[in-house]
Amino acid sequence: MDYLNNKYSNRADFVLRQTWKNIEKMYNSEAALYDVTFPIGFTLISIDIENGSPSTSIGPTMGLESNSLSRILNSMENKNLIMRRPNPDDGRGIIIYLTKLGIEKREIVIKKIKHFKKLVRSRIDESDLEAFHRVTFKINEIIEEGDVFKN
Amino acid sequence: MDYLNNKYSNRADFVLRQTWKNIEKMYNSEAALYDVTFPIGFTLISIDIENGSPSTSIGPTMGLESNSLSRILNSMENKNLIMRRPNPDDGRGIIIYLTKLGIEKREIVIKKIKHFKKLVRSRIDESDLEAFHRVTFKINEIIEEGDVFKN
Repeated sequence: MDYLNNKYSNRADFVLRQTWKNIEKMYNSEAALYDVTFPIGFTLISIDIENGSPSTSIGPTMGLESNSLSRILNSMENKNLIMRRPNPDDGRGIIIYLTKLGIEKREIVIKKIKHFKKLVRSRIDESDLEAFHRVTFKINEIIEEGDVFKN
Repeated sequence: MDYLNNKYSNRADFVLRQTWKNIEKMYNSEAALYDVTFPIGFTLISIDIENGSPSTSIGPTMGLESNSLSRILNSMENKNLIMRRPNPDDGRGIIIYLTKLGIEKREIVIKKIKHFKKLVRSRIDESDLEAFHRVTFKINEIIEEGDVFKN
């Protein structure tokens, strides 16, 4: 018997992985109908709609390496969703602005996210959702303390 | 204001993503001390220790595309953690077996997973963890029904 099938159901770590992967797949399928991807949608909502966002601040907000973000931004530029402009306050810096099309797609992304959120709330007890948030908060806290594997 | 920072704290989907990413990073750091990676560790525990596992069954168990799995298996073969053998019951099939070193590393992986699980259980209420599992189960159920974005 392999270890995984045996112990899957009560292990928070692999449950988180599997659930996130299922959500990502669902969002990616929906995004494809609008000629974008989940990473593009996620980037669209991570850019300040009025003032743009410095390219260096987007990756950390999203928890992405700069290489991965770079690839996404190139694809978004090709799709005419963003513009890159020099940062007036920083000679070497770049500000990413949404185009008109980018703003339109961003509105769709937010609509989809809200729709899923509403569905989740309509099907799951409020008190269970609160417990869910306490658990994930606590898991992140345990990891951030940085000594899970120390002793 | 960007949408994300505003709404982050009560959105199950992005909380799942962020929490999973933090867990993956933690496991990857620890894995590096043993000259492996999280995906290698995950593959080690997905292979049947006695009978090996058909290469075609490992990917689906892990929720991985065959391309990604292929890359991981090549790296594991280079590190002498697995052997590929023809499947006697299927002329074109391959069975993946763990080597002695693979079995040793697998034991370490299981120890680390159990350690984190124990820590999580010692710090989080049993009833909250049960609610957490109810929520993730329900979210997966909602997605599997396949009509989140229909109508």
